[in-house]
Amino acid sequence: MFVFCPGTQICFLESSCFNMIVLSSKVSDVMFMEAVQVLALTAGPEVFPGYSSSAMSEAVVPDALVSPAVGSMYGEKAGGPTVDFSYVGIDAILEQMRRKAMKQGFELNIMVVGQSGLGKSTLMNTLFKSKVSRKSVLATAQEKIPKTIEIKSISHDIEEKGVRMKLTVIDTPGFGDQINNENCWQPIMKFINDQYEAYLQEEININRKKRIPDSRVHCCIYFIPPTGHCLRPLDVEFMRRLSKVVNIVPVIAKADTLTLEERDFFKKKIREELRANGIDVYPQKEFDEDAEDRMINEKIREMIPFAVVGSDQEYQVNGRRLLGRKTKWGTIEVENIAHCEFAYLRDLLIRTHMQNIKDITSSIHYEMYRVRRLNENNTAVAHANGIPEHHLAAHEM
Amino acid sequence: MFVFCPGTQICFLESSCFNMIVLSSKVSDVMFMEAVQVLALTAGPEVFPGYSSSAMSEAVVPDALVSPAVGSMYGEKAGGPTVDFSYVGIDAILEQMRRKAMKQGFELNIMVVGQSGLGKSTLMNTLFKSKVSRKSVLATAQEKIPKTIEIKSISHDIEEKGVRMKLTVIDTPGFGDQINNENCWQPIMKFINDQYEAYLQEEININRKKRIPDSRVHCCIYFIPPTGHCLRPLDVEFMRRLSKVVNIVPVIAKADTLTLEERDFFKKKIREELRANGIDVYPQKEFDEDAEDRMINEKIREMIPFAVVGSDQEYQVNGRRLLGRKTKWGTIEVENIAHCEFAYLRDLLIRTHMQNIKDITSSIHYEMYRVRRLNENNTAVAHANGIPEHHLAAHEM
Repeated sequence: MFVFCPGTQICFLESSCFNMIVLSSKVSDVMFMEAVQVLALTAGPEVFPGYSSSAMSEAVVPDALVSPAVGSMYGEKAGGPTVDFSYVGIDAILEQMRRKAMKQGFELNIMVVGQSGLGKSTLMNTLFKSKVSRKSVLATAQEKIPKTIEIKSISHDIEEKGVRMKLTVIDTPGFGDQINNENCWQPIMKFINDQYEAYLQEEININRKKRIPDSRVHCCIYFIPPTGHCLRPLDVEFMRRLSKVVNIVPVIAKADTLTLEERDFFKKKIREELRANGIDVYPQKEFDEDAEDRMINEKIREMIPFAVVGSDQEYQVNGRRLLGRKTKWGTIEVENIAHCEFAYLRDLLIRTHMQNIKDITSSIHYEMYRVRRLNENNTAVAHANGIPEHHLAAHEM
Repeated sequence: MFVFCPGTQICFLESSCFNMIVLSSKVSDVMFMEAVQVLALTAGPEVFPGYSSSAMSEAVVPDALVSPAVGSMYGEKAGGPTVDFSYVGIDAILEQMRRKAMKQGFELNIMVVGQSGLGKSTLMNTLFKSKVSRKSVLATAQEKIPKTIEIKSISHDIEEKGVRMKLTVIDTPGFGDQINNENCWQPIMKFINDQYEAYLQEEININRKKRIPDSRVHCCIYFIPPTGHCLRPLDVEFMRRLSKVVNIVPVIAKADTLTLEERDFFKKKIREELRANGIDVYPQKEFDEDAEDRMINEKIREMIPFAVVGSDQEYQVNGRRLLGRKTKWGTIEVENIAHCEFAYLRDLLIRTHMQNIKDITSSIHYEMYRVRRLNENNTAVAHANGIPEHHLAAHEM
């Protein structure tokens, strides 16, 4: 049944399954047939409520005539909208993906490594603002340095604009603080591999979880002390070994002790040393996927390591609240790129490359671990059973 | 170096690494500090071009002051924008995901099953419009029915609004067309399982592809002839067996032969028969993930099977182009829900549930196949080696 009342601007359609009343300020007598057609086309999403896009929910009543997918069917023809006859709607999958991702939430695991007093906790607090439960700077100073490296994970559920993320910060107190720091990278390497192993065991399980919990370390921020000279042997040794198993993001800590000239010299020197030692930090050149990646990442590679300053102290400057460090000679604003490079680090880790950091972890570092482990396994099984190795096809489980 | 020229409304910032010129129509002398701060905050995405969101690329120059992530930092405070001090930017991952998905593209594999003459090819052409290369209706009539079931896959690369999709339509000519149709579901079942097997073999390969090619059948549209009475034994047998391994979407084909009353009776009858035979078609009740899913899917379950009419003929009605079928007594518009339920099918398959159809295939049907295969394998290996079965842990590869 169709009822159309031009005076009241109400159009009523009843089909066998549902009723709809649509108010329109645009409808005229001659547009009747068109309105009915639009109504028909838009009924789909009306039938499946909750699958309307944000565009839909933001729309006022007259615009709500047009459903999210169908909305894009309208061209710019003068005299009223025209249906794009050939529109299928496959782009609606992006909205479906977005909804699913928002339901599921995300996981991000960040490890911080560097000797005590370089502001690791403070930088994490600066990156994630008040969302990460923080310990005060003073409390840290009172803590004792552990005799061996401890690995401490703390998870936080944070949410912004409906996007939920489980952020896990993995701290490594004790690293580089001993008299003899030989092999102090070992417990960290073991921790990273243990997470890959846990993931692998779940993945190859016959009855595996629908969504494998991801405790893999997506990125390791390595804190370089602001000496202004060159990397120390411990820095080189750590990054050389760990860059093969995890995304290393080196930063120059407490960069407010360096003048701009010193900072530029130090950064250049570090880039040279990384190159000379064959250390490939994130974003790694070999993992650029296309020309666009290459262009973007090349600019980042020319800037690393970022010279950062962290702060969990708020200041008011010209009526604005900001995070900074106040001294007699001025206030350093940590998010001001004229003052330090914290904002670049934040953008890289969160706003532009977070997905890529997770992807590289999964498709490169984890895959390399997996290949190594399965090859070991095959060899071990072959030896145990007395089977020549070449008889074990890669795909046999 | 900062240069600010209020007269020219040009603000110039030079840091050690890059230069930027920003034009603003809003900047005033007193807003200088604020502008510099905004500039500083927005520099990140400027440094990493190409990672700006669509919001960014659509923005005009003054708004471009505000980067995609940073743009959302501004509140509604009177007298000028205020920075949301506590904003981190984790919601930017949605845009990063979207960009990645658009780069990669999507895959969708749809199988059509039903006896000849029910309009399978025409319906595919209607669903995907001119994007699917079509054979004309007349040519189909001239084709001979094969003596055994043939399985024919044709892939199409289609794109809409920058979203690329590889659509594969799997046709099964010969199904149900023989004198004796016993076991005619078997080659179809085998084809579906073969695709799971190919995926499994790639997944468990030691050196596996970064992205496993997905040939798994995401959904099987089963064409019920519009008898108006009840399901035939072949329909029941096919759906009963196949619904355990693939998403079955039953449709009443060529529904223009039914009056509304006949259609409603037939649909109700079919729903009863599906229930009586324990046939769980898509969207399956047991796979609803939450209350929202349940609400939406319950409405769909009350409406299936959709009574559809396909057409690849264009008609002009009141100046609009539409797909339809013209007869002496009127023109049926296939996308008009007052005429038939094609639009619901299209919404379900493409505009609202495409991602879910792929997810159920991957996380339910494929996982069930995988569990079965790995259990078989373990048993076989155990027998061959004379090892008691319970000694084979599930996670041993």
